[in-house]
Amino acid sequence: MDELLEASQPADWRAPDPGNLLYMELDAGRVVIELAPAFAPAHVANLRTLAREGYWDGLSLYRSQDNFVVQWGDPTEDADARRPLGGAQEKLPAEFTRNADGLAFHRLPDPDGWAPEIGFVDGFPAGRDPKTGEAWLAHCYGMVGAGRDMAADSSNGTELYAVTGQSPRQLDRNITLVGRVLQGMELLSVLPRGTGPLGFYEKPSQRTRIRAVRLAAEVPEDERSALQVLRTDTPLFDAVIESRRNRRDDWYKRPAGHIDLCNVPLPVREAAAD
Amino acid sequence: MDELLEASQPADWRAPDPGNLLYMELDAGRVVIELAPAFAPAHVANLRTLAREGYWDGLSLYRSQDNFVVQWGDPTEDADARRPLGGAQEKLPAEFTRNADGLAFHRLPDPDGWAPEIGFVDGFPAGRDPKTGEAWLAHCYGMVGAGRDMAADSSNGTELYAVTGQSPRQLDRNITLVGRVLQGMELLSVLPRGTGPLGFYEKPSQRTRIRAVRLAAEVPEDERSALQVLRTDTPLFDAVIESRRNRRDDWYKRPAGHIDLCNVPLPVREAAAD
Repeated sequence: MDELLEASQPADWRAPDPGNLLYMELDAGRVVIELAPAFAPAHVANLRTLAREGYWDGLSLYRSQDNFVVQWGDPTEDADARRPLGGAQEKLPAEFTRNADGLAFHRLPDPDGWAPEIGFVDGFPAGRDPKTGEAWLAHCYGMVGAGRDMAADSSNGTELYAVTGQSPRQLDRNITLVGRVLQGMELLSVLPRGTGPLGFYEKPSQRTRIRAVRLAAEVPEDERSALQVLRTDTPLFDAVIESRRNRRDDWYKRPAGHIDLCNVPLPVREAAAD
Repeated sequence: MDELLEASQPADWRAPDPGNLLYMELDAGRVVIELAPAFAPAHVANLRTLAREGYWDGLSLYRSQDNFVVQWGDPTEDADARRPLGGAQEKLPAEFTRNADGLAFHRLPDPDGWAPEIGFVDGFPAGRDPKTGEAWLAHCYGMVGAGRDMAADSSNGTELYAVTGQSPRQLDRNITLVGRVLQGMELLSVLPRGTGPLGFYEKPSQRTRIRAVRLAAEVPEDERSALQVLRTDTPLFDAVIESRRNRRDDWYKRPAGHIDLCNVPLPVREAAAD
């Protein structure tokens, strides 16, 4: 795979739109999240507003459940005591699936037990059902979603989670995914596991403080992370997948001839300085 | 699932053989590993010898690669400078697969892209091929394997790894799995990711020291972890799987009707004190 990426051309990569990037600043460094407005337009609009108004600044990562997720936002149980939403919407529609029409769905031919069809849309792992005409994002490592309560439409984007373990695909089509971590996953995945139920920290002092969450578009250009993401609709990406379906290096004695959706690498690189 | 486990009977659980349990003692606590002699008899025999002779005592976890594995043992590159093996074998056969005959293979009916058949053997996730008559352990979260070099038979069990990310099933049948972590996975999964190639730490000071690794059978009884493992050949285990294939709680709006091998929970509990 490294050889393939080294031989890549500039057109094989895309620079994500700064209007679709969140920077979560922790003491340990920056986590960069690419949002997916094609799948969750209402949530992404709310996330942009929340970031613009500094909603998460000074809040925390308050949950880390081993082999599952980390979660952040405002852990206050009393709804009246929570941080005010400012200009953001309090209520959003569930965005579990969308109409697949018009979506450039780059299909992965390998079988999958969770979805009739699987593939990639602009760098995001996704499922599709030709019978219902729906498409949806898939819960792979590093995917980011909007926590909700019992009601399907009870997420507003303030409480976000990132997948840190074996892909919990049973959540697909049950909750709104809003994007994926492009950089800094290793800052989230190492957070101590909470010892309370579901991995919530038992003491506030165990939480990890969020310095700020900003939309990249509103960060001065010289402070932005210059990231590029491998396009997933190219022959090069197909070659990357094939190099992982059947490893060619000498270490592997028995190529698998298969890959699961969530084992496909979605390369990100730092753009070369001009 | 919690309801099912609460209603379980003593016969639904088994106490692992102390001769098959390794205790890895870290400053942060104890990691308990159950060995799988049914799949890797030569490696397990070597691991028992290495533990008995204190091989890993004072060595370290020297690699943590995000969404992949942590690895421990002796990181010394110069083979002549490595810790002596004592009574352990320097060379072992590759134990990637075994003959499936005589193996109580409790099959999971869900489709899988990596193996013709999947299921559980005494609490371990496994694959099977009726055409070749082979069975093998599967690389799920928490599984422990024996690192090797290029040659298939180049592992001797001194360098072990545990899976900390999305199941790298491409490793199945390419390397010898020796067991799985029953308790303490959260001590391994949070280790800072190494910034060198493949997640190796760049500085020795970044490694995590191993106080000792002991075989439970050689630890005084009152210092042992009293763990019980849910049997995987029972109607209760089938009910547990079904409860995860189709979640019945109100939160889920759309049960998946499927589960992947590595999403099946393998419950472990502390035995009640007498």
